Amino acid sequence: MLLERLRAAPPLTHCITNAVVTGFTANVLLATGAAPAMVDIVGESGMFAGIASGVLINLGTPTPEQQAASREAAEGATAAGTPWVLDPVAIGALPVRTALAQELVALRPTAVRGNASEILALAGLSGGGRGVDATDSTEAAADAATALAQRYGSVVAVSGPVDLLTDGERVVRIANGDPLLTLVTGGGCALGAVMAAFLGAARGTGISALSAVAAASLVYTIAAERAAALSAGPGSFAVALLDALASVQPDDLAAAARVEESIR
Amino acid sequence: MLLERLRAAPPLTHCITNAVVTGFTANVLLATGAAPAMVDIVGESGMFAGIASGVLINLGTPTPEQQAASREAAEGATAAGTPWVLDPVAIGALPVRTALAQELVALRPTAVRGNASEILALAGLSGGGRGVDATDSTEAAADAATALAQRYGSVVAVSGPVDLLTDGERVVRIANGDPLLTLVTGGGCALGAVMAAFLGAARGTGISALSAVAAASLVYTIAAERAAALSAGPGSFAVALLDALASVQPDDLAAAARVEESIR
Amino acid sequence: MLLERLRAAPPLTHCITNAVVTGFTANVLLATGAAPAMVDIVGESGMFAGIASGVLINLGTPTPEQQAASREAAEGATAAGTPWVLDPVAIGALPVRTALAQELVALRPTAVRGNASEILALAGLSGGGRGVDATDSTEAAADAATALAQRYGSVVAVSGPVDLLTDGERVVRIANGDPLLTLVTGGGCALGAVMAAFLGAARGTGISALSAVAAASLVYTIAAERAAALSAGPGSFAVALLDALASVQPDDLAAAARVEESIR
Repeated sequence: MLLERLRAAPPLTHCITNAVVTGFTANVLLATGAAPAMVDIVGESGMFAGIASGVLINLGTPTPEQQAASREAAEGATAAGTPWVLDPVAIGALPVRTALAQELVALRPTAVRGNASEILALAGLSGGGRGVDATDSTEAAADAATALAQRYGSVVAVSGPVDLLTDGERVVRIANGDPLLTLVTGGGCALGAVMAAFLGAARGTGISALSAVAAASLVYTIAAERAAALSAGPGSFAVALLDALASVQPDDLAAAARVEESIR
Repeated sequence: MLLERLRAAPPLTHCITNAVVTGFTANVLLATGAAPAMVDIVGESGMFAGIASGVLINLGTPTPEQQAASREAAEGATAAGTPWVLDPVAIGALPVRTALAQELVALRPTAVRGNASEILALAGLSGGGRGVDATDSTEAAADAATALAQRYGSVVAVSGPVDLLTDGERVVRIANGDPLLTLVTGGGCALGAVMAAFLGAARGTGISALSAVAAASLVYTIAAERAAALSAGPGSFAVALLDALASVQPDDLAAAARVEESIR
Repeated sequence: MLLERLRAAPPLTHCITNAVVTGFTANVLLATGAAPAMVDIVGESGMFAGIASGVLINLGTPTPEQQAASREAAEGATAAGTPWVLDPVAIGALPVRTALAQELVALRPTAVRGNASEILALAGLSGGGRGVDATDSTEAAADAATALAQRYGSVVAVSGPVDLLTDGERVVRIANGDPLLTLVTGGGCALGAVMAAFLGAARGTGISALSAVAAASLVYTIAAERAAALSAGPGSFAVALLDALASVQPDDLAAAARVEESIR
């Protein structure tokens, strides 16, 4: 099972992510069992993407330094064959990150993670959501996700009440999770980092990128369910989520998973 | 009641804030019921201030990029009529932010929030505090607050054991809160963001800016009291504060408020 | 006792630290009893290092702005006689920070804190660890720590299961702490800030830098032990650590300390 493999050999997970969630993201990776490294400056991010097991590029607060470091990391990951995840946060209405997301997706990320509005905007089908919140439903983005997956050879993961993941042929729907995830900043962003970690853990195993991304989503959303059961609100939920990520076991996943797989 | 209105239609709250507290600030907004968006780069912050319901500009870590983004946001908010809050963190001794605060306050923010030393420094009456801590009492800043309010047409909120809020004519004193707020980084900064959210929620209602800022302070400080009662120290307090912000109800506020209003 | 002194007169602790841990670091300082100020921009960090009681320079995410601010702060601290701590995060493989660390250590920091791989790399004896994780044991870095201490007149603190601290003559080993510290991002970085605070509190007392740094390590690692006993995982541990830092008393330290001192 991929979770056991990840814990046995923690994948070095290189994150370029936004200033709002960088601490929480590192803590989510540590709790899950991965080894985070937030290397987001020019002159280091490209070579580090070659050393890392997996890379996340999240566009939530793309300063000029992060823009350049993101390009460097995407090129470094591509050159080295390191799997990488693109999270096009809040693209659509916001011009700087929208242009950068279009440029980076053309470099063919291993996976793209976003909410429905972000995936629609990345596919050129919508003006995007309202800030970081989706204004479109997950299913409304299903065709856009498939189109993106086929165009760029990426797994596309649309987060929502039911997560929809596709490689352009197969579609996986995961009904796990809890609404409290939307009340913690980084609730979605950190999942992108976990996907990068699982893609790193899957290297050399023959496990497909779609399966690795689905495993990441399952671990994360089932941990969220366990945390929600112990929480009095969004503050205690965020704490309990980290505890749950550290304690969740493969058997728990098998028992709790609500997954549907289909062919397009 | 403004809290109900905010939760029914979450105001998109645009924050340019310091690197220390950005995650906590977003979590405070989410817990309260608002929709945070931390858009702090040049080329996005100005137009986004026009889309947002309310804007916070906090000068805690003003990198050159944030300085430029702050100017853009203040101008965008002014042009669009979006209410905005200025938080002049640690001005006085520190030259870069002091000059920037003077420039921004001249653009007539809807509200200014700071501790006594910051408000005195903004009014030109003192050399400022010691880092981020006030070295002056709230009442010592009362005249400076009134002068600033009259000069710039702003509501001025002075945080301290008793918060003092004024629009230059009326003065509101709020005795709620808990000393643990001073042991959590962002305890004050996040209140500035909540003020921006409440100003956003008040748009089009005829509720005055002073009343909106007072409502924000009440919700925040009464939630802090409820959290303190459940806490074993500053760590558990910060967690409980988020839970309390998510659960506090209008009736709780009416029962707990310790407010005095007077005419200057 | 230095902890009591620190709480009676909170040292203004100036931190230039990485974007991942800045909030947690400030909260650790506040909980312990110090007064944090995260002043990391050019034009402010140099003069502020002269005002502060102690300074931390942590190289975890050294943007060009932070690189320049770090140079400014190191020079300002040196000129004013303010004790300062250098934390050369993840140097070795990463070229930008490695060069900066070599430049800064030549300015003779009061203390250097790092894991074994970082200390070996700073001494020029190794290529560094894997991201932020040590790949070398603490004892393997003992000679490098002594060499650095003698070369630069610094106290060198090597973090690990047993912390090793030396001024080049005396060696202190502290066996307190808990492995959960490695599952919280900033678990090590925040200790560097606490060392800066304790060095600030020790000014004018005749207490040696080695003793101040050892006191910081003891308070921090014994608080970690108390927190671990109350925790269900890394999320609740980080919360409990803040509570424990705020409540730990000198008597608790005396009872729990596992310290060995020797002459080289």
